[in-house]
Amino acid sequence: MKWVGMATLLFASLCCAQESGDFKPAASNVSGATYPRVDGSSRAQLRVKAPDAAKVKVKFWSGPKLDLEKQADGFWTVTTPPLAPGLHYYTLIVDGAEVSDPGSHTFYGGSRDASAIEIPEPGASYYLPQDVPHGQVREVWYHSSVTGDWRHVLVYTPPGYDVQTSVRYPVLYLQHGAGEDETGWTKQGHANFILDNLAASGSSKPMIVVMANGYAKRAGQPVPDLAGKPFGSPEAMRAMQEMAAAFEDDMTQALIPYIDANFRTIPDRDHRAMAGLSMGGMQTFQVTFDHLDLFGYIGGFSGAAGPLVLGNEKLNAKTAFHGALADPAAFAKRVHLLWLGVGTEEPAMMHAGLVRLHESLIDAQIKHVFYESPGTAHEWQTWRRDLKDFAPRLFQEGPSKP
Amino acid sequence: MKWVGMATLLFASLCCAQESGDFKPAASNVSGATYPRVDGSSRAQLRVKAPDAAKVKVKFWSGPKLDLEKQADGFWTVTTPPLAPGLHYYTLIVDGAEVSDPGSHTFYGGSRDASAIEIPEPGASYYLPQDVPHGQVREVWYHSSVTGDWRHVLVYTPPGYDVQTSVRYPVLYLQHGAGEDETGWTKQGHANFILDNLAASGSSKPMIVVMANGYAKRAGQPVPDLAGKPFGSPEAMRAMQEMAAAFEDDMTQALIPYIDANFRTIPDRDHRAMAGLSMGGMQTFQVTFDHLDLFGYIGGFSGAAGPLVLGNEKLNAKTAFHGALADPAAFAKRVHLLWLGVGTEEPAMMHAGLVRLHESLIDAQIKHVFYESPGTAHEWQTWRRDLKDFAPRLFQEGPSKP
Repeated sequence: MKWVGMATLLFASLCCAQESGDFKPAASNVSGATYPRVDGSSRAQLRVKAPDAAKVKVKFWSGPKLDLEKQADGFWTVTTPPLAPGLHYYTLIVDGAEVSDPGSHTFYGGSRDASAIEIPEPGASYYLPQDVPHGQVREVWYHSSVTGDWRHVLVYTPPGYDVQTSVRYPVLYLQHGAGEDETGWTKQGHANFILDNLAASGSSKPMIVVMANGYAKRAGQPVPDLAGKPFGSPEAMRAMQEMAAAFEDDMTQALIPYIDANFRTIPDRDHRAMAGLSMGGMQTFQVTFDHLDLFGYIGGFSGAAGPLVLGNEKLNAKTAFHGALADPAAFAKRVHLLWLGVGTEEPAMMHAGLVRLHESLIDAQIKHVFYESPGTAHEWQTWRRDLKDFAPRLFQEGPSKP
Repeated sequence: MKWVGMATLLFASLCCAQESGDFKPAASNVSGATYPRVDGSSRAQLRVKAPDAAKVKVKFWSGPKLDLEKQADGFWTVTTPPLAPGLHYYTLIVDGAEVSDPGSHTFYGGSRDASAIEIPEPGASYYLPQDVPHGQVREVWYHSSVTGDWRHVLVYTPPGYDVQTSVRYPVLYLQHGAGEDETGWTKQGHANFILDNLAASGSSKPMIVVMANGYAKRAGQPVPDLAGKPFGSPEAMRAMQEMAAAFEDDMTQALIPYIDANFRTIPDRDHRAMAGLSMGGMQTFQVTFDHLDLFGYIGGFSGAAGPLVLGNEKLNAKTAFHGALADPAAFAKRVHLLWLGVGTEEPAMMHAGLVRLHESLIDAQIKHVFYESPGTAHEWQTWRRDLKDFAPRLFQEGPSKP
């Protein structure tokens, strides 16, 4: 940090950027950055300084790849076609180097701290900070006997948690996707603001939300050597299963007991839910159906029971999930909510897989909710909408007294 | 997020990188990134893919600027000379574009999400996560009547805060530098781990630490238009003073009352400290000396009373700080600790300014502590060491009972 530029930095942190026409700096920008910016028709305008570059491109991970044009001042610019609402990861490619945009905040995705641009959804404010009571998002470290190390977990406590100290709350375990981490649901997803707003309007019960890191390795186990072992190879599949099993054990044997001992939870299956997106949805199906004694509510956001969605496998309702679906009436009594969601613009295989699972559940007469997010891809606006639909269906019996 | 690359992403998040000789991936890397890496003699090795670039450089903000060399595989690499211990911000320059390193986590500094590399300090573990009880770091939103908006503040609560619910704690307000924000003290500084470790060894009292955003603008005030007004111009100086005054009012009229109402503090000056680095040190001197009724402990880390340090102004002990220093015996009775620190490798003006202030305080017979961090610059290792020396001197009378 050079202190000599302090005045510039100070004012950069206060200033709203200059506007030009309808374009305004994106909400996802660092303070004072005038680019990237967004106009009323959801077009984005990017600008980056690269005076000596021969070629600069932008790659939206779930959208277009575009060339930027060099200007006389050494900056490169481009205006995109209208983009879908939501937070879009993107990469700048400067003479072959895939880098983040210095004007954007970074968000952990694709196993890197990546740029992303927020395109507002017209008329929607459910995921934005509002003038309502706010909960806290706590960084917590717990020691796991399963992984043998200290693990970092984020815990949302609802508004009033520190004031109403005799109230106990239900808990939602909420998992990120592959390449992301436990910061995703609040930083990208705004889960805390979504739940603040839902609770303020009376649409959902106040709840604790636990966002764990979805990667786990058993204490003492070596990292698998997968050099030359492609996705789908027996070695890679076994390694994935081992990781998933370690996560399941960490969650059920270390994390849940820690949360129940250290937060004012209602520690029973009627007041415990789990949901996750993509990889987190697969983890949710594995963990909850292996432990229906622990969970009463289940959500798969753009991901659920791996082979049933991505593997083109047909649901056998008699045998699947240890037979939990064999008796629809018993299932409906035991599982208060089975919820599936997918965006209409997700990759065809993902969308088709979720639709197929949904139809199989209808055939099997398994009560569930199926939600399609119109016009959104395998991205955060889908999952924000999922949470907005899912959370109000949870714990409607209300918090019990201790 | 593309789900098809899931296996790769999964394993990247688990794997420790391959080592080569003595070099190991930096602790500041994203999961699975093999570069940048560091060897036992504190050299860093950088590597970035830029197949079509003509020139790639690295600029350490408080260190060398070096050219990378292109390899046959399209990657560019460089090995640095030994670097000082600590966290060093750096920028890659790819054909003139100043960007972050995709292998590094980003840290908010210089008003951007910047790369930084952690160079271990041999034999030092006071700032690393240890096998000791950990406090929480809470994201909190409070509404400020001064700025007219919701403000984001981080609050460290010590280990056991949620368990020992009848204990009240002293509070340290701890401020970041210019171009950084409220995340700096934990993400870059590891303040939470430093305090966990100090409390575990009995070296310091358990305390609450409040890390506020140091930028403020009064409700309804326009952003100053400083186009063409350089640093030091009357307009720029006035704008800086207005921002500092708004911050002071926000802190004393909104933040402190909020913290005292919502956390189990001991709400008096004997149990309230303030410290800050660089700009945060200047803010500390302004806020505390304007409000000695609120604060009993004062720390300036690489920054204190602006003109006295950077302005080459001589301390007039009779008139400075509303006359607080005029009677050394009365001052020593009233202010339990006045603490100044600076790194020996900071810019000459900063180092000389702090030394001059220290000597002026000796001349004025004002009891204080002066600490020089050997071999470190205007960077986080200086401030980590400052906190390690400063915190154990606070609140030695211990927490009172409610």
